[in-house]
Amino acid sequence: MAGNDSLSDFLASAIDAAKRAGEVIREGFYQTKHVDYKGEVDLVTETDKACEDIIFRHLTQLYPTHKFIGEETTAASGTVELTDEPTWIVDPVDGTTNFVHGFPFVCVSIGLTIGKVPTVGVVYNPIMNELFTGIRGKGAFLNGNPLRVSSQAELVKSLLVTEVGTQRDKSTLDASTNRINWLLSKVRSIRMSGSCALDLCEIACGRLDLFYLVGFGGPWDVAGGAVIVIEAGGLVYDPSGKDFDITSQRIAASNPYVKDAFVEALQQSE
Amino acid sequence: MAGNDSLSDFLASAIDAAKRAGEVIREGFYQTKHVDYKGEVDLVTETDKACEDIIFRHLTQLYPTHKFIGEETTAASGTVELTDEPTWIVDPVDGTTNFVHGFPFVCVSIGLTIGKVPTVGVVYNPIMNELFTGIRGKGAFLNGNPLRVSSQAELVKSLLVTEVGTQRDKSTLDASTNRINWLLSKVRSIRMSGSCALDLCEIACGRLDLFYLVGFGGPWDVAGGAVIVIEAGGLVYDPSGKDFDITSQRIAASNPYVKDAFVEALQQSE
Repeated sequence: MAGNDSLSDFLASAIDAAKRAGEVIREGFYQTKHVDYKGEVDLVTETDKACEDIIFRHLTQLYPTHKFIGEETTAASGTVELTDEPTWIVDPVDGTTNFVHGFPFVCVSIGLTIGKVPTVGVVYNPIMNELFTGIRGKGAFLNGNPLRVSSQAELVKSLLVTEVGTQRDKSTLDASTNRINWLLSKVRSIRMSGSCALDLCEIACGRLDLFYLVGFGGPWDVAGGAVIVIEAGGLVYDPSGKDFDITSQRIAASNPYVKDAFVEALQQSE
Repeated sequence: MAGNDSLSDFLASAIDAAKRAGEVIREGFYQTKHVDYKGEVDLVTETDKACEDIIFRHLTQLYPTHKFIGEETTAASGTVELTDEPTWIVDPVDGTTNFVHGFPFVCVSIGLTIGKVPTVGVVYNPIMNELFTGIRGKGAFLNGNPLRVSSQAELVKSLLVTEVGTQRDKSTLDASTNRINWLLSKVRSIRMSGSCALDLCEIACGRLDLFYLVGFGGPWDVAGGAVIVIEAGGLVYDPSGKDFDITSQRIAASNPYVKDAFVEALQQSE
């Protein structure tokens, strides 16, 4: 197990990598409005790959013995194998649809797991200039200022965030909108930003109270944000209320006070 | 009918008023996280009223013969009467729930109708520092830079934004989520920001492609944004495809190329 000093080093390295990738994202973001559809697809693929390369190259040089899981390389190889080794889990561009459309919820997400536990997290939105960071046991920060989840204990006064994902078959769509219908009868209102990693950071900030998502892309969507939520005093758990499993493509997050009521509402919505 | 010079004067006055109100919103925004629920409600009411007072006082002094419609005063008197006279239609704080929670989609919306036609519009987000402006026949701008709606002509590649409103009776909720379910089978994805006026501005920017909302609060939610969309090359219409009626609490907006397909999908979703 790494000591605290090296966790700080890991965070500093991840911030460096995220900022370098962020420059490429920022450049592409302001280009996307000027390319045709074929161009858009190429630009996205190019930006995704370029950013993943930048991040992996930077971290591999510093930590040659660490493992790496990235959205792009996993999409190519088709497998995710998470071990107890220190493992960098990277989404080079989270909020890809927003990136293409120019909607500013776009970020780099970098998480480090040690013993499968999210230990260091960086989520960087280069368009809105928000850098969220967290180290296990050392707190969570937005641009250097400490973060705290909301203290809202009542579901009816809570603001929910979720996403509809990319699957459009009828049974997935029906399950998704039926769940939203049920939850809307319980909570104050709902938001959708299009970025799972940034949704987790909004929970960490206390700007939003409740988050759940099922059937998302992979651990790269949540590895960075999970430690940030926890270090901001929040909880990350399976929507059933059981322990969070980073490889399960199922996540819920909130402050501790509203968790039980949220899990009950989520269970009723199944 | 006012000449162009006076339309520019009207816009400058509305920007002044919005910026003054914006300062009060910004102050309240960073306070809301530190007040209890009773305090929150008072703060919202106080901020709403203070902002409406600032805006009305400023514009009444300059234009004593103009009419005024505001969310707060209308909520008190219960009536909206829109005439052909120059009429300032004001939402002092659009995105009230976001304001309370600290989610940064909050704005002042000021619209001027002349002959019932939206003629001058200002939508100002003091948290994200985005000032959207438009004058009929003179273009739309974000912080002084010209705006253009997207050129996306295909529904399946379009990004939709809508809101679920505040009514939570079963038939309204079912209608709302059934419509979302149907539209999700047609469009790329969906976003919800919690501010109707800012949603219109996102359409004007081309960051999002499609917007509809039925059953919102009143003309103050759309009077500022409507002219900004139109001047950015977009269309504002009834979700049925018929002409937009600012007093109807029904609105849709998009670029011209995707309108027919969007209206057809909206009609099928009824």
